Amino acid sequence: MQEKFVSEKHVKFLLHEVFDAGSLCGYERYSQHNRKMFDMVLAEAMKLAKNLFYPIFSEMDRKGPEIENGTVKVHPQVRKIMSESGEGGWIGATFSRENGGEQLPWIVAGACSYIFFAANYSAGVYPELTRGAANLIAEFGDETLKKTWIPDMLAGRFQGTMALTEPEAGSSLADISTTARPHDDGYYTLTGQKVFISGGDHDGVDNVVHLMLAKIEGAPAGVKGISLFVVPKLRKEADGSLTPNDVAVSQIYHKMGYRGCPITQLVMGDKGDCRGWLVGEKHKGLAYMFQMMNESRLGVGLGATSIASAAYYAALDYARGRKQGRKPGQKDPSSPMVPIIEHADVKRMLLFQRAVTEGALSLIMQCYLYADLERVTEGDEKERYHLLLELLTPIAKTFPSEYGIHSTSQSIQCFGGYGYCDDFPVEQLYRDARIHPIHEGTTAIQGMDLLGRKVTMNNGKAYTLFVTEVKKSMEQAGAWPDLARYAWSLGSSLETLETVTRHLLGVAADSGTEIFLADAVLYLDMFGLVAVSWQWLVQALAAKKALAGTGSKKDQDFYEGKIFAFRYFLGYELPRVHALAERLMARDPVTCECLPDHFND
Amino acid sequence: MQEKFVSEKHVKFLLHEVFDAGSLCGYERYSQHNRKMFDMVLAEAMKLAKNLFYPIFSEMDRKGPEIENGTVKVHPQVRKIMSESGEGGWIGATFSRENGGEQLPWIVAGACSYIFFAANYSAGVYPELTRGAANLIAEFGDETLKKTWIPDMLAGRFQGTMALTEPEAGSSLADISTTARPHDDGYYTLTGQKVFISGGDHDGVDNVVHLMLAKIEGAPAGVKGISLFVVPKLRKEADGSLTPNDVAVSQIYHKMGYRGCPITQLVMGDKGDCRGWLVGEKHKGLAYMFQMMNESRLGVGLGATSIASAAYYAALDYARGRKQGRKPGQKDPSSPMVPIIEHADVKRMLLFQRAVTEGALSLIMQCYLYADLERVTEGDEKERYHLLLELLTPIAKTFPSEYGIHSTSQSIQCFGGYGYCDDFPVEQLYRDARIHPIHEGTTAIQGMDLLGRKVTMNNGKAYTLFVTEVKKSMEQAGAWPDLARYAWSLGSSLETLETVTRHLLGVAADSGTEIFLADAVLYLDMFGLVAVSWQWLVQALAAKKALAGTGSKKDQDFYEGKIFAFRYFLGYELPRVHALAERLMARDPVTCECLPDHFND
Repeated sequence: MQEKFVSEKHVKFLLHEVFDAGSLCGYERYSQHNRKMFDMVLAEAMKLAKNLFYPIFSEMDRKGPEIENGTVKVHPQVRKIMSESGEGGWIGATFSRENGGEQLPWIVAGACSYIFFAANYSAGVYPELTRGAANLIAEFGDETLKKTWIPDMLAGRFQGTMALTEPEAGSSLADISTTARPHDDGYYTLTGQKVFISGGDHDGVDNVVHLMLAKIEGAPAGVKGISLFVVPKLRKEADGSLTPNDVAVSQIYHKMGYRGCPITQLVMGDKGDCRGWLVGEKHKGLAYMFQMMNESRLGVGLGATSIASAAYYAALDYARGRKQGRKPGQKDPSSPMVPIIEHADVKRMLLFQRAVTEGALSLIMQCYLYADLERVTEGDEKERYHLLLELLTPIAKTFPSEYGIHSTSQSIQCFGGYGYCDDFPVEQLYRDARIHPIHEGTTAIQGMDLLGRKVTMNNGKAYTLFVTEVKKSMEQAGAWPDLARYAWSLGSSLETLETVTRHLLGVAADSGTEIFLADAVLYLDMFGLVAVSWQWLVQALAAKKALAGTGSKKDQDFYEGKIFAFRYFLGYELPRVHALAERLMARDPVTCECLPDHFND
Repeated sequence: MQEKFVSEKHVKFLLHEVFDAGSLCGYERYSQHNRKMFDMVLAEAMKLAKNLFYPIFSEMDRKGPEIENGTVKVHPQVRKIMSESGEGGWIGATFSRENGGEQLPWIVAGACSYIFFAANYSAGVYPELTRGAANLIAEFGDETLKKTWIPDMLAGRFQGTMALTEPEAGSSLADISTTARPHDDGYYTLTGQKVFISGGDHDGVDNVVHLMLAKIEGAPAGVKGISLFVVPKLRKEADGSLTPNDVAVSQIYHKMGYRGCPITQLVMGDKGDCRGWLVGEKHKGLAYMFQMMNESRLGVGLGATSIASAAYYAALDYARGRKQGRKPGQKDPSSPMVPIIEHADVKRMLLFQRAVTEGALSLIMQCYLYADLERVTEGDEKERYHLLLELLTPIAKTFPSEYGIHSTSQSIQCFGGYGYCDDFPVEQLYRDARIHPIHEGTTAIQGMDLLGRKVTMNNGKAYTLFVTEVKKSMEQAGAWPDLARYAWSLGSSLETLETVTRHLLGVAADSGTEIFLADAVLYLDMFGLVAVSWQWLVQALAAKKALAGTGSKKDQDFYEGKIFAFRYFLGYELPRVHALAERLMARDPVTCECLPDHFND
């Protein structure tokens, strides 16, 4: 049975009616595309998702990867997923033509990834990771590296990975201990271990190319001594043949969800013959990796949104079909039962899921649009897009990741006991969703990034630009009297955000970094509520415009449904801004004053 | 390796210092016990939990029950768990001596169940369900039923169940269709199906005794026609032998968590020979069942608290041992890394878990104390305890169930990637926790129970009594200047609760039941925040008293830790009351106005 996991109509609404992606085609880089082609690309993505990704969604979970004879065995369809993702141009979609790509805007490629992830998140990770790793070589590698690795990666023959985390260092990259010793022949000899490497080894490809952080012997301590290397599983000899490069998989992790993709522990240089090639300059690895990490963080937000979306459509379908109980006030027990979608509390849970998934997708597509525009503009304009993207990235990663947990949980709740059983997909989606606040920088790290770095950078310029954008949308809402009440709520929350931000910058000056950053996660949550409410206003404005010109009942329902989801989010979720502000303004540093011994008993 | 899953010190703090359980022994019913005996009982429970329940915690999850030859095969240790729970007097702990029990107060028996559940929730459910079912027979059954079934159930030889839910009816008990036809020999012949029956069949006992709802032929429609029956798997013949009673297991559910206990689908009367015996009077089944359901709902709250507790101690242990990163401001990358428990954000997550689990346990023990006092008092005093218990039960069920999800999720977050893997217990605890907002009445049902029934019953008397209790605690806080600020927050939230309650009763009169009850779940959440904050104040008062008289550093840390958790809950969680109030006061019935078609796309 084919279940619905995304709404193509909603994706097109965002792409065209909200973000006018077609207008990007006015820029040279995107000039070979047009709106119609974007729709064709989306339709192709839907086909691939339905025919290739979705059918093995449960199978990949139930029979996860295992190590056999030193290689990770994955679902046999992974090979097909990689080759079709390569041959169809999906992996290289956003790459420049000179690197073998399609120069598709990120906003379109991202919409396609959203569709693949919603069909089967684990399956979608393989090509997505490869794209990210190849992009890092394309951006910072020399010509030899590009020629050697990019074509096989974009073709889906070679898997790409990001190899950062180590057993001791975890989130603390300053403390990585993988070392690289220069060799006269131009390469480096690597020794060390990496943990939690997604797609770090598997038999669905011919080779794996790790983009790996390591420290060159004698490098400065901390993050200033980190360099970036290409470290393949099999290295390419001069004749093009592949030979083992002394990278071994020592274990794979048995995870609660996201089980279709192997997460591996790698050991480099056990035989003293693991070779890596430096990407870009020495000691600049972290800066390069951050470029990829920003891309990956949007990708994680997108994945979280996709999973929540699949769960939402499953719950919606169930709520329409399942009859139970009667409307309040209907006291006659012999009257027929109603579909549970008629109960206000079920509609509340569905509106929550819808508001979270469609709001999050809107925010991520907004970020992709900024990325696309940054790429093709210059000067102040370019800086403006760059700063907005930098500011919003930790939010676009975290809001979907954290709310995705609640959203998939509410999907289960719509099903009642059936949602807890594996007859329906929602229990798997709930398990899959839990990875996102952890990987590619935990929520705590995103909070510190936002408050400790992004809000203050360039003298607060990014922050000011964001406020300007929100106010622009609020002004437009003036044209629609029934949106005004909600625009006012958004305005009040934006003021609260400004008050809290000023207050916290004062705390930084008064009380030092620890107290300043102690509640950065709450600040991030508050910022996310404002940002997603803004995106809902942007959607509501587009829906209002469309309603003025539409006739069919079906379209009317769709656009009015958008207004309901907007009202839901601003009415039910946005008020939490004030609760968070109460805490953030409190000057009561409980978590700093409480010491480890206070947990003794 | 033995992991810590509960704190005996914390349980004793609640039992003695907060609730003075020893004073119950002044009542005739509990006069054979004393405080020292209570401690011995707790110590025995700890021993049993460590030696019998805990060692199979993971095993029961990894190899769940399966049907073989028409019987459900469970973990072989279940038989021992049931027999030891029987022989040790645990199942019948709270029963009157005339029914073979120990007349232990609920507050003590509940503390023991908390310990069992924390060690292994699935394992703890078998005896707990049996206690509930046997209690229903003890309360409402005739002498024959009591003699026939109670001894085997209290001995752990027979499993007890609650058989309510049906395939079509789900949460809507008015619509159950299992029928009972009277037979001349005094029994009834039953036909029908039940779904999601916990412990509905297994080979760890000699028999299963279902306490089952059904409708006698010709009974009134709806809930007024429901009767309660004892329907055994094997019936007892006159000579004491057991013969099949035409109750078949048609399937078991494959669940995301809580996998150690089989949840079954039952078919009664396929061969026309399923016999049931009426409990109490005809058509009063729902009222009887509600008595058991209240007990079960507290039990679910307790189970949720226990799971969160086990996850909290796992996270605490990990946070103490795991070193990563440095304190903010420590810029020297060659300085040693610190245990993550020193990071403010990790302490925040630990304080959240602690505040949720210890706050929830306090609320549930408060309810058990009311139940114990209701049992031994008369007149106004009895009514007072009864009403407070009725009012707080939906909260004591829901707060731990909903916050238990967030709390176990934060436990995973403390571990980072390791928390997502099955090397540590938290991923299982996260999966186990998700059942609680569903079973024994979903959160939506608890919300409607609280707002639609409990708040208004007896002209709002229960509600008024609650407010009085909270105010009493606030007055006591006056003696401690450093608690005053928090007592003030609680007072302000209590006022908000009162304003919202009055407002909603106005909505009921103005706008009808649907709009009145549409956000009952939010109201329940708000009430829960106030109730748990009150319990934290009660604990903080006890800690303050203890601090005045204590010398040892260890005790001082413990009591000061209590004050930190109190400050955390009132500082971080309680402010959400105002956000919920903003929504509840909004007069914008989004979820009622939004129609099923608005979800079309």
